[in-house]
Amino acid sequence: MSPLFTDLYEITMAQAYMAEGMDGLAVFETFFRKLPAARKFVVAAGLADVLDFLETLQFGDDDIEFLRDLRVCSDDVLARLRGLRFTGDVWAVPEGTVVFPNEPIVQVVAPIVEAQLVETFVLNQIHVQSVIASKAARIVEAAAGRTVVDFGSRRAHGTDAALKVARAGSLVGLAGTSNVLAARTYGLAAVGTMAHSFVQAFADESAAFEAFARVHPGTTLLVDTYDTLRGVDRIVELAHRLGDRFDVAAIRLDSGDLDALARAARTRLDRAGLDRVRIFASSDLDEHAIARLVAAGAPIDAFGVGTRLAVAPDAPTLDVVYKLVEYEGVGRTKLSTAKTLYPGRKQVFRASEGDVFAGDTIARFDEVLPGQPLLVPVMIAGRRVPTHDGSLAAARRHARAQLAALPPPLRALDDAAAPYPVHPSERLTADLDRLREAHADGAT
Amino acid sequence: MSPLFTDLYEITMAQAYMAEGMDGLAVFETFFRKLPAARKFVVAAGLADVLDFLETLQFGDDDIEFLRDLRVCSDDVLARLRGLRFTGDVWAVPEGTVVFPNEPIVQVVAPIVEAQLVETFVLNQIHVQSVIASKAARIVEAAAGRTVVDFGSRRAHGTDAALKVARAGSLVGLAGTSNVLAARTYGLAAVGTMAHSFVQAFADESAAFEAFARVHPGTTLLVDTYDTLRGVDRIVELAHRLGDRFDVAAIRLDSGDLDALARAARTRLDRAGLDRVRIFASSDLDEHAIARLVAAGAPIDAFGVGTRLAVAPDAPTLDVVYKLVEYEGVGRTKLSTAKTLYPGRKQVFRASEGDVFAGDTIARFDEVLPGQPLLVPVMIAGRRVPTHDGSLAAARRHARAQLAALPPPLRALDDAAAPYPVHPSERLTADLDRLREAHADGAT
Repeated sequence: MSPLFTDLYEITMAQAYMAEGMDGLAVFETFFRKLPAARKFVVAAGLADVLDFLETLQFGDDDIEFLRDLRVCSDDVLARLRGLRFTGDVWAVPEGTVVFPNEPIVQVVAPIVEAQLVETFVLNQIHVQSVIASKAARIVEAAAGRTVVDFGSRRAHGTDAALKVARAGSLVGLAGTSNVLAARTYGLAAVGTMAHSFVQAFADESAAFEAFARVHPGTTLLVDTYDTLRGVDRIVELAHRLGDRFDVAAIRLDSGDLDALARAARTRLDRAGLDRVRIFASSDLDEHAIARLVAAGAPIDAFGVGTRLAVAPDAPTLDVVYKLVEYEGVGRTKLSTAKTLYPGRKQVFRASEGDVFAGDTIARFDEVLPGQPLLVPVMIAGRRVPTHDGSLAAARRHARAQLAALPPPLRALDDAAAPYPVHPSERLTADLDRLREAHADGAT
Repeated sequence: MSPLFTDLYEITMAQAYMAEGMDGLAVFETFFRKLPAARKFVVAAGLADVLDFLETLQFGDDDIEFLRDLRVCSDDVLARLRGLRFTGDVWAVPEGTVVFPNEPIVQVVAPIVEAQLVETFVLNQIHVQSVIASKAARIVEAAAGRTVVDFGSRRAHGTDAALKVARAGSLVGLAGTSNVLAARTYGLAAVGTMAHSFVQAFADESAAFEAFARVHPGTTLLVDTYDTLRGVDRIVELAHRLGDRFDVAAIRLDSGDLDALARAARTRLDRAGLDRVRIFASSDLDEHAIARLVAAGAPIDAFGVGTRLAVAPDAPTLDVVYKLVEYEGVGRTKLSTAKTLYPGRKQVFRASEGDVFAGDTIARFDEVLPGQPLLVPVMIAGRRVPTHDGSLAAARRHARAQLAALPPPLRALDDAAAPYPVHPSERLTADLDRLREAHADGAT
């Protein structure tokens, strides 16, 4: 991705910092301030793309020429941007970590120009991938062990989002994606059935089924193009007609009352001795619809989720920010609104009781408190740290362990659970109070 | 974009079509079925990217190797995919056209394998760009002539969405974008101010203002890092200190009660003789917040909109579909749900009364009815049609004219306007009835 994927003000500030001779070490932290009403936790995701971006950050000649045309940078600054690389450190919570308001997800420690320039990309990727991973985790939880796959590419917001939906979904336990490019890019299982158009293109539904099943042994046939249960009957007829050559793994329901249709279909299939044919369901599914089907005991073996996974319409945004908390070793804050910004570089300590997370403390970076520190070094001097396994497989394992350790009321879909306890440490609170007093005294 | 940006079932269906020797001409139509509750019209967008994709569609050797590994295609079919290009025709409504439920936005007429393979990309781009253009049109309307710019890149869903938000916003009248890459890609104005981090990095707010203003004549200074009105006072002090050298175009408010703060800031600026310094506002703005500020007479000259433009959280999805309506000259439908699919290739005729749109008729492609036909040829035999100006500038002009011709209640934000009248033609209705009867008779 071009380093021009940035807000213009990052460039104008770079110009001003350089013109002022300001090249001190800055600490920026990425966090969100508030959980959306429909979420009780967030699954952090997107770090791998952030690290790729930082490791390869470089302005090309054409980028510099474009900036020159914008007339916001001096020739001297343009020359320095041309040679700029990201030389900073990054501490972060590993992908798949469950996080709560005000907990740093990514902490960038770098000369201020470098740290400032990457803000837009860092936020963009952490935002979309965390939004989707958090939604997907709820969907996987609702499916209670049944297979869930991503069918959301057509409604995801753009091509990058489609790929990242597949990735973030996989991170929290989706079994595959329909997007072939995502499957290739991330090493995921490519999955799919057939579309209504295939059935429609034939003069006759039975002929469409037979043709598709012949070409794709072990496939899934879509039965609801005209009349769902008549479609199921045609599967049964096909089984009788083909005998031993019948090799259909599943039928797919994509409309109507999925519970009733699944039961009726199951009965017809079982009566015909086709108990090995599984039932796959899709059609505007989200965690609530899946939970209802599971609770009702609908005989559905697998779910395809599309739009409601890919856009997370119930909580499509998270108020993630990227804030300067320290410059040249001095804690910085921002005061004018009700939003509290704790100054200084931080660490988060997570306490557990048995196997269950019991509460987090947001502390100063130089504090050592009981519990597991969440932020770990992932990049030093612009290079990935070999001790951090940034693979998707590692993130998937980590997410599974993290979600398993959540207090059960937080995992439940609808419970009005008490918020997970997160507190600032005493020393962090004291630092904020000190800065507030200094500002009240007119020090700025 | 790689042609692997597709759902796996498009590939498995391609295999089955080819294995069956089916290469007839198919007509697929892209349309949405229902307006979201928060929308009274949709602005069609995304066509330019669709045409780029179709014109350059080509499987590379590595794509074919990946498909071979998936084991869903025969060698013969893989060889045919390797040589495949898009050779079809596309009719579409020009970008910026206002559209309503069931009206074809893009109509692809091509051998069925080609038309089927491109479904996912077509939907992905028409969806995100139309969702955002429709939101942005409401925001521009609410601003009632004041400047609006895109600040949404950090919260847009991924990098592609960030670029497309800038593009779709510009299409309906946004004045610029903060995203530098989007500005370069689409020839838009790159805009920006400064971030809180810049102010925070200085020991003192006044020093930050002076440094930034010195480096960037005519800039905008962000005044709310610590205390908004104290920030305004520091702008006034800076003006006194610099005298003729003071060259600040605007201040930016980014938190708090924007109406009250804008009034208080305006008063202080005017009293200091700084009536030429304009007021720019941001902070979770959407069309409703902007309309309230405008109605209240808040002295705000320009708005920066971020998250609520870039994700359109009140209507982040549109149920756009890509449906087979004709194969080998025969109209096709799909019956099993309450969703009506009119068979056959279509045209839409829009009637006007004076300068105002009065109602649309969705007709068979071979009908000629009163009104303006909305679908025009944009690609013939895989090549763009020279008579169609697909430029963003043309789309912007078209959108302006389209939005101006909307019945005023549809442009209003909150009115419970009667839906815009859209009806199928008599002949189209008769075609659907005929197909339904045929299916009821068990013809399929």
